[in-house]
Amino acid sequence: MKTEIITIGNEILQGKIQDKNTQALARELHKIGLELNFAQIIGDTKEALEQAYTLAFSRSDYVFTSGGLGPTLDDQTKFYTADFFELEVLENESALERTLLNYEKHIRSYEKDKSHYHQIPKGFIATENPCGYAPGLIYPNNKKVLMMAPGVPSEFKAMVCEIFFPYLLKNNFTHQSDLTFKSFTIKTYRIGESKIFNSLCPSLWQELEKYGSVSSLPRCLGVDVCVYLKGSPTEIIKQEKEIISIVEGSKLKPYIYHYGQIELQELVVQKAIEKKISFGFAESCTGGLNSSRVTDISGSSAVFAGSIISYANSVKENQLGVKTKTLIDHGAVSKQCAVEMALGARKHLNVDIAISTTGIAGPNGGSKDKPVGTVSIGIASKSNESSESYFFRGDREGLKSSFSEMALLLLLQEIEEF
Amino acid sequence: MKTEIITIGNEILQGKIQDKNTQALARELHKIGLELNFAQIIGDTKEALEQAYTLAFSRSDYVFTSGGLGPTLDDQTKFYTADFFELEVLENESALERTLLNYEKHIRSYEKDKSHYHQIPKGFIATENPCGYAPGLIYPNNKKVLMMAPGVPSEFKAMVCEIFFPYLLKNNFTHQSDLTFKSFTIKTYRIGESKIFNSLCPSLWQELEKYGSVSSLPRCLGVDVCVYLKGSPTEIIKQEKEIISIVEGSKLKPYIYHYGQIELQELVVQKAIEKKISFGFAESCTGGLNSSRVTDISGSSAVFAGSIISYANSVKENQLGVKTKTLIDHGAVSKQCAVEMALGARKHLNVDIAISTTGIAGPNGGSKDKPVGTVSIGIASKSNESSESYFFRGDREGLKSSFSEMALLLLLQEIEEF
Repeated sequence: MKTEIITIGNEILQGKIQDKNTQALARELHKIGLELNFAQIIGDTKEALEQAYTLAFSRSDYVFTSGGLGPTLDDQTKFYTADFFELEVLENESALERTLLNYEKHIRSYEKDKSHYHQIPKGFIATENPCGYAPGLIYPNNKKVLMMAPGVPSEFKAMVCEIFFPYLLKNNFTHQSDLTFKSFTIKTYRIGESKIFNSLCPSLWQELEKYGSVSSLPRCLGVDVCVYLKGSPTEIIKQEKEIISIVEGSKLKPYIYHYGQIELQELVVQKAIEKKISFGFAESCTGGLNSSRVTDISGSSAVFAGSIISYANSVKENQLGVKTKTLIDHGAVSKQCAVEMALGARKHLNVDIAISTTGIAGPNGGSKDKPVGTVSIGIASKSNESSESYFFRGDREGLKSSFSEMALLLLLQEIEEF
Repeated sequence: MKTEIITIGNEILQGKIQDKNTQALARELHKIGLELNFAQIIGDTKEALEQAYTLAFSRSDYVFTSGGLGPTLDDQTKFYTADFFELEVLENESALERTLLNYEKHIRSYEKDKSHYHQIPKGFIATENPCGYAPGLIYPNNKKVLMMAPGVPSEFKAMVCEIFFPYLLKNNFTHQSDLTFKSFTIKTYRIGESKIFNSLCPSLWQELEKYGSVSSLPRCLGVDVCVYLKGSPTEIIKQEKEIISIVEGSKLKPYIYHYGQIELQELVVQKAIEKKISFGFAESCTGGLNSSRVTDISGSSAVFAGSIISYANSVKENQLGVKTKTLIDHGAVSKQCAVEMALGARKHLNVDIAISTTGIAGPNGGSKDKPVGTVSIGIASKSNESSESYFFRGDREGLKSSFSEMALLLLLQEIEEF
């Protein structure tokens, strides 16, 4: 079974908004044992949609669309689709009922004469919208299925998971497979793709390929090497063990920090909860990014106490106790300042581990000695008071990410050694 | 001239990484007066690439590809492309020279026998990679141009802007147009699309359409209404004035907070710099997101002093001076706590304005009285000590965004009234 998404919207092709629905659909399909095979992004024109449908229905069985179902004049997806299938758009009793229910749920009333949600192409099914007003549409057609959702990411995702997938399962278009699919990930840091596969472990790729298709994802500070495993749950566990034994025996070992598909901030929170370790940050150049990443994780409040974002030197002095002399002698971006920041944060936030970041994210503020991309990271725990300087490349956003990634990697290490 | 991007990578269709290059290309094209017309995302197979090329060259003049140029075994884009055009892949003197230079720049040496960067399809041009090792490729073919860049976002963007665009201009494939393109944006808050265009201003869309194509983007807490203007700079200024006069005379006026395409955090920093107002945050539920958004903006250090992220109640008490009695009597998520947090932050960070956020981002922690989505936001300035509670819908990530958006909107208002 092949699946495809057509994302519709000038605003995406104009770069005004980032398409998030392709990734969301890919992730949700993976959970029910399907893969996303193709994605197209097109503008709000009839011709583009017709081209996209022609290609999609020539190669895919489940075609999802995102966007163009709303109330504004550029929301023409439904009408263009009806024309493509040569169907009339008609008032539909069940679509009206469904729309009224979507509105009632949000304590609003539907004005039939001002909107067209209750008019749908003949043969289409109007669905509930778990998070909004516009109904979704389903069109089973010749063993293929078209599923149309609004483009707003929260509405799209809820409709896919709560309406479309149950529909596919209930109507036997797909079934939960006995085979398990699992993407097994080897997370590495401070190493690049070419070093891994050309110098360090030139035969690793082929060895891993015996277990399934291999991919390599360059990340902020390292590479995720993924093997896509298929089989019964027991077979997959066996395969994972074999893969771990291969890489543990290879020169890649010192660069590996985790096996499994998990974001660094989630891993940090998980390990801290396991070991009952509290932590916090003193952030200058990362400006709150470390804290924000950690608090994206539900349950982080059990271990993350808080942070002091000391962008101004006065805040470094007054809230973290950094010495004026340190700032004068070494500057704010220095190992000395970093360690004092971490010590101050540990004391004032009353946590087991505090990590500090002070650096230059640019584009301004660099010097010959301390160019843009320089960062000092400090650690304070009961057994460790240290700091180190690093240098990364990138634009402001990229550097903030690299600084933050390095800080969380050091925090993870400190938690593991605690 | 039509442009198209083909993004290649299983990791994107598996949902492991978010495609960022489509948006980056769209934005950069817009700056040189071009539009992105189509985008395709495909996996690493020859068949998918051939289908994508066939469609792309049938409708587009400039075709960009992203991904599959790296050193690993799944990086086959170059070879599949050569097959598609029925060209041989050959060792190329100038490609070798270019690759050596790309490596030298990073103080590394290229191992010719372990890599294939110096082998390119006949008739292709190997280009500099401003941020990495793999050369880009350009293939001028029958008045159409194929431009192939690595998928790593920093490499992709640098190659597009610094190599491909200058190539197109220099070789007269495109030229800086006399016409200016401008997307004029009306930024609104606390209102939805359907309320604007169905109830409040039912003829607004048509009125705006006289000036250019209109689009409407639902955002976190409001809607961006955009009109795509074309014309000479003088004409555009005139059009903008007329549009402003239309919307200022409409019922939309009270919901508008800005004219222009700018992110809220940038607007906040800009206005604060203009008025020389310093600010900081006391963040609980937003967990550093407000601070991180503000520090994404270069120059923010002139006005943003720092923040206290008080996730734990102990930090609210010790670092912000929130009274124990307040936490017991009203709870951490309360207007009372919010105002005390803001006052504490204003005092300790020594800023003109402090904004606090305390709420429940979920999925756990909600109650009947204070369900998930509740947030209290406090303001402290020389003339204002207040707080208000709000309620939003969404998942944890969405709620953090909504809380943060509301906090920055209130900060903007406070700066403007200061």
